[in-house]
Amino acid sequence: MKNKFKIYTILQLMKKLIVFTLICFNLSAVAQSKLDFEKDSLVIRNMSDYILDNHVGYEDLRVLCKTIGHRISGSPAAAKAVIWGKNALKEAGCDFVYFQPVMVPHWIRGQEQFNITLKNGKQIIFDQALGLGNAVGTDGKNLSAPIIEVTDVKELETLGEENIRGKIVFFNHAWNQKIVSPFDEYGGCVFYRWAGPSEAAKFGAVACIIRSAGSGKDNFAHTGSMRYDEKYNKIPAIAISYLEAEKLQKLCRERSIQSASVNSTSHFGPEVLSYNVIGEIKGSDIADEIITIGGHLDSWDVGEGAHDDGAGCVQSIEVMRALKRTGVTPRRTIRCVLFMNEENGLRGGNEYARIAAEKKEKHICAIETDAGGNSPRGFELKMSPAQRAKVKSWNKVFWPYGVYNFEEEGGGADISPLQKNLGTPLMGLMPDPQRYFDLHHTHNDVFEQVHRRELSLGAVAMSAMVYMLSEYGL
Amino acid sequence: MKNKFKIYTILQLMKKLIVFTLICFNLSAVAQSKLDFEKDSLVIRNMSDYILDNHVGYEDLRVLCKTIGHRISGSPAAAKAVIWGKNALKEAGCDFVYFQPVMVPHWIRGQEQFNITLKNGKQIIFDQALGLGNAVGTDGKNLSAPIIEVTDVKELETLGEENIRGKIVFFNHAWNQKIVSPFDEYGGCVFYRWAGPSEAAKFGAVACIIRSAGSGKDNFAHTGSMRYDEKYNKIPAIAISYLEAEKLQKLCRERSIQSASVNSTSHFGPEVLSYNVIGEIKGSDIADEIITIGGHLDSWDVGEGAHDDGAGCVQSIEVMRALKRTGVTPRRTIRCVLFMNEENGLRGGNEYARIAAEKKEKHICAIETDAGGNSPRGFELKMSPAQRAKVKSWNKVFWPYGVYNFEEEGGGADISPLQKNLGTPLMGLMPDPQRYFDLHHTHNDVFEQVHRRELSLGAVAMSAMVYMLSEYGL
Repeated sequence: MKNKFKIYTILQLMKKLIVFTLICFNLSAVAQSKLDFEKDSLVIRNMSDYILDNHVGYEDLRVLCKTIGHRISGSPAAAKAVIWGKNALKEAGCDFVYFQPVMVPHWIRGQEQFNITLKNGKQIIFDQALGLGNAVGTDGKNLSAPIIEVTDVKELETLGEENIRGKIVFFNHAWNQKIVSPFDEYGGCVFYRWAGPSEAAKFGAVACIIRSAGSGKDNFAHTGSMRYDEKYNKIPAIAISYLEAEKLQKLCRERSIQSASVNSTSHFGPEVLSYNVIGEIKGSDIADEIITIGGHLDSWDVGEGAHDDGAGCVQSIEVMRALKRTGVTPRRTIRCVLFMNEENGLRGGNEYARIAAEKKEKHICAIETDAGGNSPRGFELKMSPAQRAKVKSWNKVFWPYGVYNFEEEGGGADISPLQKNLGTPLMGLMPDPQRYFDLHHTHNDVFEQVHRRELSLGAVAMSAMVYMLSEYGL
Repeated sequence: MKNKFKIYTILQLMKKLIVFTLICFNLSAVAQSKLDFEKDSLVIRNMSDYILDNHVGYEDLRVLCKTIGHRISGSPAAAKAVIWGKNALKEAGCDFVYFQPVMVPHWIRGQEQFNITLKNGKQIIFDQALGLGNAVGTDGKNLSAPIIEVTDVKELETLGEENIRGKIVFFNHAWNQKIVSPFDEYGGCVFYRWAGPSEAAKFGAVACIIRSAGSGKDNFAHTGSMRYDEKYNKIPAIAISYLEAEKLQKLCRERSIQSASVNSTSHFGPEVLSYNVIGEIKGSDIADEIITIGGHLDSWDVGEGAHDDGAGCVQSIEVMRALKRTGVTPRRTIRCVLFMNEENGLRGGNEYARIAAEKKEKHICAIETDAGGNSPRGFELKMSPAQRAKVKSWNKVFWPYGVYNFEEEGGGADISPLQKNLGTPLMGLMPDPQRYFDLHHTHNDVFEQVHRRELSLGAVAMSAMVYMLSEYGL
C-alpha cells in the first residue's frame, strides 16, 4: 500500500513534470501547431519578391515628395496630398477608396527671425532658426529683451520670476548621445519643445528659444508641435539647430550678449475641411473583423515629409498593393488609413476612432508606421500578454527579413484613440532608430534621405504582419 | 521486488526527465552562471557611453577620408594611411604600435574609355565606365570590335567561339533585387567581375564590359578585383553603372550598335614595400592568448574608402581606445590590425597569419569588420558548434545595442588565413546589409555616406565582443 502510494505519488509528480516541461518548452510550438509555417512563409515570400522587385512604394514617395512636398494640415499642399492618396490607393487595387471628412487646424508659418546683439554692438543672425508649430508670432514687431540660458526646468525654477520676468529664455537642454535608441532620448527632450514655452511664461518670460530635439550635430533646426498652458501668456517659441545652440551657449556663458530679438508673423488661419483617406480590401470569411494599417498624410511645413511620414503612407499603400498583386485574399478586412493632422492636432486619428466606435466596428488590431522608412527591425506592441505571446510565436516567419524584435511597448499616435475607444490591440513598425532624429521635422527630411530597399523592406514586414493577423487573428 | 523495481525505474525516469528539463531549459542559464551578467553589462555600458558620447572614431574617419582619401595598395596615399594608422593607434592608447612589412602589388588606373558607335554614325560615350582592378589596359590604343550581350556564362557557352571570337563581350548579369540581403546576392554577381574576363577570353573575346555588381539603381560603376586565368588571353575589363548597363542593353537588343571601343592605360607598376599596422594592449593574466580585431587600410582607388574599409579601421581602433579610456584591463592580449592589400591581393592578411604561425602564437579568436559602417545587427561566426553555442549564450549583453544575430556563417577575408594556418575561430561584424552594395567600390563611398551613430554602435558591438572573449575565452 505504501509502495502503491509511492508509485502513485511519483507518477503524479512525473505527470506534473511532463506537463510543466510541455508547457514551458513547447508553448510556442503548441501555439504554432495551428500555423502552417511553410504556406505562410511562401505567401510572405511572394509578397516580398513583388515589393523588392518593383519598389512601387518608393516611386509613390518620389511623387509625393517631389510634386507636392511638405503638406501641413489645412494647407493647399495637404489638399493635393489627399487627392494623391486617393489615386495611389486606387492604383494599388483597393476594393473601396473613400474620404473621411475632418476639420483641421491650419497653422501658417510667417517670416521668422531670431537675432542677438552683442555688447560690442555686433549683430548675429540665427538664420536656421525655425518657429515651433502652433506657436504665436509677434505680429511682425521686434520683441527685444535680455536672454537667459537654462538647461532644464529645475534651473528655471531655481532662478525664479525675479531672474526670468521680461527675458527671453533659452532652453538649452542637450540631447544625450549616450542613449542607444534616439527614440528613448526623444521622449525626454521633446518636453522642452512641447511644454517649454509655457514653463518659461509661468515665470514671466516674453519668448522662448529651444535647442532642437534632434540627434544630429548639424545646422538643421527641428520644428514640431508645442502646446500652450492656458493659465499663462502665450509667448513666441523658436527652435535653433545644434550648431547654433552651441554658439548661443558659448555667447551666453561668456556674458557677451546685450539683447536678443524675436520677430515672427506665424499664426493660425481658420480651420479647414480635410480628410482621412481610406482604402479597403474586403475580407473573405471574417470580413467583419478589421485590421487597420496606416501612416499620416500631413507633415511639418519644412523639407518634404519624406520619413515623417510619407514613408509610412507609401508603406501602408504598398501592403494593399502586395496583397492584390500577389493574389492574397485576406480572411479579415484590411483597411489602409492615411491619417490627416497627426502633427499638430490628431484630428484624423480621433475622428477615425470616433466613427469606428459609433459604427460598433470590430477592430482586431491596428498597425501604425510612423518612425521613418529605415530598415525594419521589429514591431512595438501594445496589447495583452496573451496577444503578445501569440505575435511572438510568429517570429520565425519574420526572421528572414531582419525583423526580430517584439519586446518593446508601443503603438502610434494616430491609432492610440482606437485603443482608448475600442480597446484595440496596437502595433508600431520599428525601423532601425539611429538616423530618424537627425532629420525629423527639419528641412532635411527629403526623399533623398530614404533608402529604396530599406523603405520596401518595411513594407514587406508590414505585409507579413497583416497577412498573419488576417489568417490567425489575435 | 517488482514494485521496488518499478519505483527504481520511475525514479530513474524522473531523474532523467529532471536532467533533461535542466539541460534543455537552463542550458544558457548554466553556461551563463559562469558569467557575471551585471558586471559585464556595466563594463560594456561604460565603453558604450564613452564611444557614443565622443565619436572619436568618426572624427578619425573624417581625417582618413578627407586628408588622404582613397588609398590603393602601393600608392603614395596608402603610405600616408600607414602613418595615419600608426598615429591613430598610438593616440588610442595602445601599449605597443608597430609595422609588419609586406610587399604589395601596385595596380595603377590610367585613362579609361568605353564608347560605342551606332549604325547611324552617332557615338555614345559611357563616361561613368570604370576599369576593373588588376585588369590590363590597351596601351592607350583604341580596341574596336563588335559587341555582344550575354546574361550569363551559360549563354556564352551556347553562343560558343564562332559567335564570340573577336568581339567585346557585355556580361549583362542583373542584380536580383528580390534577395533580402545584398551580401547574399553579391556572392552570386561578383563571379562575373572576378572571372568574367577570362570566361569571355576562353571563347576568343577581345575585351569585356561588366554590368556592375551593385544594388543601386544609379549611375555609379563598381570597380573591384578580377583575376585572369593564365590559360587564356588577358583582355581589358570595364564595369559600367546600372543606368549605363540599361542603356547598353537596350541598344544591343535593338541591334543598333555598329561597334564598340575600349581604350585604357591601366597597368601594374613594380611591387611596393608596405605594412600592416598593428596596435596591442597586453592582457593581464592570460596575455599569451591573442584576440585579433581589424579592418583593411587599403581601399579601391575611387571615392574615399569610407565604408570599405575606413569604417572597419576606425571601429577597430575605437575598441582599443574604449578599453583604455574606460580603464578596462583585458585578461587576454588584444591586437588591432589594420591590414594592407585586402582589395587586390590579400598580402597583409596572408603575411599576418604566416608570422603568427611562425611565432607559434595562440590566437583564440579573430574578428573582422569589413562590411560597412552601418547599424550593427550581429556577428557572423566561423567556429565549432560548441564555440558558437558559447558566443550565443552571451546574447543578453548584446541585446541593448540592437545586436541579436549570431546565426550566420562567416568571418572575413583578412582573417581567413589565420583559420587556415592556425585553426583560429573567426567572427565578422554584421551591419545592416541594405546600403552597402550601393556604394561598395564606387566614387560614392565617401565619408558623408557613413552615419556617425551607426558607425559608433558598430564599435560598441566590437568592444562588447572583445571584452567577453577576453574575459571568458572561447
